[in-house]
Amino acid sequence: MADTIKYLLPEEQIPKFWYNLMADLPSPPPPPLHPGTLQPLGPDDLAPLFPMSLIMQEVSAEREIEIPAPVREIYKQWRPSPLFRARRLEKALDTPAKIYYKYEGVSPAGSHKPNTAVAQAFYNHEAGIRKISTETGAGQWGSSLAFAGALFGIEVQVFMVKVSYQQKPYRRALMETYGARCIASPSMETNVGRAILAKSPDSSGSLGIAISEAVEVAASRDDTKYALGSVLNHVLLHQTVVGQEAMKQMEMAGDDPDIIIACTGGGSNFAGIVFPFLGAQLRGGRKRRIIAIEPAACPSLTKGKYAYDFGDTGHLTPLVKMHTLGSTFIPPAFHAGGLRYHGMAPLVSHIKDLGLIEARAYRQTEVFEAGVQFARCEGIVPAPEANHAVKGAIDEALKCKQDGKSRTILFNLCGHGHFDMQAYTDYFAGKLTDRSYEEGDLAMALAGLPSVPA
Amino acid sequence: MADTIKYLLPEEQIPKFWYNLMADLPSPPPPPLHPGTLQPLGPDDLAPLFPMSLIMQEVSAEREIEIPAPVREIYKQWRPSPLFRARRLEKALDTPAKIYYKYEGVSPAGSHKPNTAVAQAFYNHEAGIRKISTETGAGQWGSSLAFAGALFGIEVQVFMVKVSYQQKPYRRALMETYGARCIASPSMETNVGRAILAKSPDSSGSLGIAISEAVEVAASRDDTKYALGSVLNHVLLHQTVVGQEAMKQMEMAGDDPDIIIACTGGGSNFAGIVFPFLGAQLRGGRKRRIIAIEPAACPSLTKGKYAYDFGDTGHLTPLVKMHTLGSTFIPPAFHAGGLRYHGMAPLVSHIKDLGLIEARAYRQTEVFEAGVQFARCEGIVPAPEANHAVKGAIDEALKCKQDGKSRTILFNLCGHGHFDMQAYTDYFAGKLTDRSYEEGDLAMALAGLPSVPA
Repeated sequence: MADTIKYLLPEEQIPKFWYNLMADLPSPPPPPLHPGTLQPLGPDDLAPLFPMSLIMQEVSAEREIEIPAPVREIYKQWRPSPLFRARRLEKALDTPAKIYYKYEGVSPAGSHKPNTAVAQAFYNHEAGIRKISTETGAGQWGSSLAFAGALFGIEVQVFMVKVSYQQKPYRRALMETYGARCIASPSMETNVGRAILAKSPDSSGSLGIAISEAVEVAASRDDTKYALGSVLNHVLLHQTVVGQEAMKQMEMAGDDPDIIIACTGGGSNFAGIVFPFLGAQLRGGRKRRIIAIEPAACPSLTKGKYAYDFGDTGHLTPLVKMHTLGSTFIPPAFHAGGLRYHGMAPLVSHIKDLGLIEARAYRQTEVFEAGVQFARCEGIVPAPEANHAVKGAIDEALKCKQDGKSRTILFNLCGHGHFDMQAYTDYFAGKLTDRSYEEGDLAMALAGLPSVPA
Repeated sequence: MADTIKYLLPEEQIPKFWYNLMADLPSPPPPPLHPGTLQPLGPDDLAPLFPMSLIMQEVSAEREIEIPAPVREIYKQWRPSPLFRARRLEKALDTPAKIYYKYEGVSPAGSHKPNTAVAQAFYNHEAGIRKISTETGAGQWGSSLAFAGALFGIEVQVFMVKVSYQQKPYRRALMETYGARCIASPSMETNVGRAILAKSPDSSGSLGIAISEAVEVAASRDDTKYALGSVLNHVLLHQTVVGQEAMKQMEMAGDDPDIIIACTGGGSNFAGIVFPFLGAQLRGGRKRRIIAIEPAACPSLTKGKYAYDFGDTGHLTPLVKMHTLGSTFIPPAFHAGGLRYHGMAPLVSHIKDLGLIEARAYRQTEVFEAGVQFARCEGIVPAPEANHAVKGAIDEALKCKQDGKSRTILFNLCGHGHFDMQAYTDYFAGKLTDRSYEEGDLAMALAGLPSVPA
């Protein structure tokens, strides 16, 4: 029997620096704008929301940013994360392709999110902050920040999209086990929430609304800062430990990826595995195919417009240039809650615009079919988000079979699906739908994009 | 900040042999008896249920039994499992004790159970078996055998205690994701099940009933064998990889445990970490305190009788001498489903009888309190079963503080609680009870023990 091979780095090889793609880009991404003045944002504009150390990372163009020793110490609990060669899956697919996956589900919260949650909690702690507000969709980010907050004695308050709050009680239980407070959004605790509930008492919420609530709390209270789990430059930066480790592990395996695949919601998981490889390419290294996979029901990269937009529904955030479906776009319900965001990280949008990456959208049922096949071969049950990358890898491997060519495929398995088993239950019961958004809704949301002079 | 330290062995140090405690015992445990003749069981008596290779392990007195290469290859996916020093917990407890834990939740199914599931699936596969029937209470064992079955192309059929089947749909979803068939027990598929349903149509089942159903299926079909997740000698044997690794990891840490703690249901988790250390002691090595922790609601070691009893409710199994609450004893509902068994592994019972180990029982709410404290310090949310060991370790660490003495404590964190979050939800909602059994019920169950001449 061909068996899965594990490539594990020694602890000393946890990266000592985060890698900043900004340093190697042929052109910088367009700057974020102040929503009132439409002028480029300065660091001070963000000071109510973030500690200055994170703001400086947000605007840094340094290639390497040192990872503080206490953050590396905490990383050691689960890092370096394993890289696997999926030989049992290769065999089941009868493909000449070699399939590798980096597995981030080994973190205590079960996904890649603690890579940045720990860093953000550390910098907030260093700045004397005792409370952080944030939002969460599926709950991966909320539980990761809850975990990190517990380590640094920081109170964490999580606005959880109401439909997830109701449908995913166990993610909420996880956050509460870590000591965080979890609030269904929209809530009566903020102006944004109250206004929405006054108009729509039955609102089931959205990530855009939850962001508005969390931002409002942080902006209006001196003792509270805000934390975001994706999209922003500094969040993507922290995830680059993933790709840096994967590069070393591919070397250990004596191999080199021809194709790199990751799912994209806000972009941090994708950036984590891709940016270090892309940086090497931009510095004159080998060119690889890089594929971002997104859900067909929320396809910012494949159907969105590359334009300035708000990051939230309440329009409290700066304007950022990104691939967006419009901040009023509400995607239909599907299980990969971490991919239900109307926009995309500005940095990921920028490299898409530069033609450095491809993007592809998949429907819900086909990604679960791929996830089940993966679980039966490899033993790990992927999160619904990760199933998008699994499907991408399987499709590329089958293409190799068709072409009679062996290519090396690397994808990021960003988390396990232990808290998402309802999705698998629905899949087996034939209850998963491939419901798409209404074309008219998307057109209306795009028509409502803020007008920003070029 | 004092941080958790991880001790990781290289892959080459996955044990090459399972350790058989039988070889070092001062006296062998009393033999299992045929329930009809009351004569010691021979290997052939077990042939309808197990492949001969496993039967030979069941009766072996060899100290070291080689782990087949294909089993070690699969182990490599998650083994060697990490050993952690819980420095954040030590600090929170303000104790001079050093607390180490071996973490088995890194396996694909999330507990120590795959250590034996993979081995059992391998030997069945080798014997040409294509179908295995088994039972599961909480679902840890059923999902582990489902995982192992998927790897070897073996159909797995799991009789799941009906109350768990209904209350833990996500464990069932996990088994189905691995391709197993999951049946609520008592079922209409067996004589035992039909008889029980005829008498009690609303029966919510028990592990004893589910074992009877699974055994009946295997015994009555030529193409099907049976697999058990605990209790039997060969199952305990397979778990000794845990303790063997822990011994090396404690050496890496430059330390040596004064106290070893594990929870006990059927006994395999306990045996896994304890037997290699105990064997070294029996061969003239250092004596350590060894503590088995069980639930106060199902206290076979602390309140049971050391006597011959059936392993199941339907009385299809051999008679084994063990600490038992009586095969008709039905413990009250509690969340640590893996510890809801009326008996105890004969080998564990024997060493308890020899005075080589201590036993202690805890109530449900106090073990969850310990589990939540552990999660907030260490980041890992333990399974309800594992919380018993956590509580034991915390109590011993607090005793060190009281005594002003530093002792080294090692416990086995046998699995994560991702599929048990309802229990945590209930805990936070104040809905967990410490309901005990009725004394009269226990007396009646013990009075019904089969009479076996000494």
